[in-house]
Amino acid sequence: MSYVEPSYSRDMRYISTRITADGAGGYPVEASRYRLVVARACPWANRAVIVRRLLGLEDAISMGMCGPTHDERSWTFDLDPGGVDPVLGIERLQDAYFARVPDYDKGITVPAIVDVTTGQVVTNDFPQMTLDLSTEWTAHHREGAPDLYPEALRAEIDEVNALVFKDVNNGVYRCGFSGTQEAYEAAYDRLFSRLDWLSQRLENQRFLVGDTITEADVRLFTTLVRFDAVYHGHFKCNRSKLTEMPVLWAYARDLFQTPGFGDTIDFGQIKEHYYVVHSDINPTQIVPAGPELGGWLTPHGRESLGGRPFGNGTPPAPPAPGEHVPPLTITN
Amino acid sequence: MSYVEPSYSRDMRYISTRITADGAGGYPVEASRYRLVVARACPWANRAVIVRRLLGLEDAISMGMCGPTHDERSWTFDLDPGGVDPVLGIERLQDAYFARVPDYDKGITVPAIVDVTTGQVVTNDFPQMTLDLSTEWTAHHREGAPDLYPEALRAEIDEVNALVFKDVNNGVYRCGFSGTQEAYEAAYDRLFSRLDWLSQRLENQRFLVGDTITEADVRLFTTLVRFDAVYHGHFKCNRSKLTEMPVLWAYARDLFQTPGFGDTIDFGQIKEHYYVVHSDINPTQIVPAGPELGGWLTPHGRESLGGRPFGNGTPPAPPAPGEHVPPLTITN
Repeated sequence: MSYVEPSYSRDMRYISTRITADGAGGYPVEASRYRLVVARACPWANRAVIVRRLLGLEDAISMGMCGPTHDERSWTFDLDPGGVDPVLGIERLQDAYFARVPDYDKGITVPAIVDVTTGQVVTNDFPQMTLDLSTEWTAHHREGAPDLYPEALRAEIDEVNALVFKDVNNGVYRCGFSGTQEAYEAAYDRLFSRLDWLSQRLENQRFLVGDTITEADVRLFTTLVRFDAVYHGHFKCNRSKLTEMPVLWAYARDLFQTPGFGDTIDFGQIKEHYYVVHSDINPTQIVPAGPELGGWLTPHGRESLGGRPFGNGTPPAPPAPGEHVPPLTITN
Repeated sequence: MSYVEPSYSRDMRYISTRITADGAGGYPVEASRYRLVVARACPWANRAVIVRRLLGLEDAISMGMCGPTHDERSWTFDLDPGGVDPVLGIERLQDAYFARVPDYDKGITVPAIVDVTTGQVVTNDFPQMTLDLSTEWTAHHREGAPDLYPEALRAEIDEVNALVFKDVNNGVYRCGFSGTQEAYEAAYDRLFSRLDWLSQRLENQRFLVGDTITEADVRLFTTLVRFDAVYHGHFKCNRSKLTEMPVLWAYARDLFQTPGFGDTIDFGQIKEHYYVVHSDINPTQIVPAGPELGGWLTPHGRESLGGRPFGNGTPPAPPAPGEHVPPLTITN
């Protein structure tokens, strides 16, 4: 599977069935019925991992974890004993896609939510997925769960999300997978112009929208946390490192050090995924040993801007057993 | 030409004829007889370009300039009108190698010194070449030329040069062209251990050996100046950028801002060379737009350490007409 095109465009055709409180689409919210399949490496899946943690949905929605690398056909459960997901009983995520759509011909992507009773993918529509976790799954939220998509701020959150998606979340891919110098440079300019805009917005404001953590912060965070480890070098997003953009670097550390964010990040899996899977832009498949990561744990000073990270709520408890990531080593 | 090997090793078989004051090897020092052929991109050639400038040998030894990219056969004079070197009358540097050794089967490398009277390469032995410019060409040095290889310090300079060559100058290539993860990681560890050692050495000492600029500084500089623009990303030397190593970054800026150093650097040609020529590690051949370069012109503060950059000598005059590099743009 080659990602390099003259001007990269993401295939946005997803299985868009929704799981809703009223079950109108045939898939009602129901504890223990669905399994969220993710990979630590993937920024789009990372959104769902974070939101599930922040909302305390661990008991209601179990989580299956694909390994960092995959072949041309599918993500695989190679981290599990025997290479088989213990709940779904499959080795390759594509089996759950084919169970739903036998001749499924689009990308086998994470995150995907699978109906455990049928083994079928219900949805892999990642932008809608996290919003539904916030708004449809409220009956199963933990006590003290934050409101990540408050009604009064939805228009502003949507607007910020649209810009961040186009120029940043997907923008880094457009830099990395451009097949021409011109397309790359256009993507690079848009990316860094948007990062400058975000730096300005966040200079005197702790979070992106309102004074609490919202879906907008989750979506920006998953790209920022991968920036120096992958996008800076692998995707040639190299005007500067995140560590050289003071406002965004402090903002990203603030979130990283907030329960539910940094405790979902596995830098080893992140690096392995990109550098091994994208052999069309890294033919040696060698994974860089850097960068130094200890800086993520240094003081960020953003408390002085005020803000109430969880609004009227509380931080989540530590990750569930079996869902821990390796601790960040300070030396490198 | 593929550079990627399990563990990268540089072909060090050079044409090692020397040009000497006594002419013992058949090639006596003589003004206007020889042409130094370089490329702005190449760090090994950059040494000779800097030393020629520092010593004021421009009038004695002319300079031919190959373009930043080359094909499998040879560096070419594609920057010159008609693609022909105006003095040697050739399009491809290999012609000067074949004139000397008809069945020459080793690398067509820069720097090379060509005898203009015969069109033959005299030497491409870059480590000896710059030492000979310092010690054999003294009759043609400018007034105020520094002593880059002072007798009393030669043992120490040689010792530092050997370590810097192995772990840094060539070490970055060993990172970039390792064919295995293990070989890469070993090269990476050696590189950054040596950079840490150099940082310590330079923390309270303005130059590498003694209190003036020597050959040792020239050799370290040509790698440092390419570090963030190329080696950090392209060769995966990414524990940190040079800009994140405060002592080395200030040391490199000090030299960059010294006449004879920064005025030999063409970042555009440097980036184009590596990212286009090494299609085995950058198959898209897209050249990164970053990094921002304005930092090179910021104050370095190293004057407070004392030191006498040119010893009892003086800085060189500005570059000769036709030998200017594009000015550094501050914005990017």
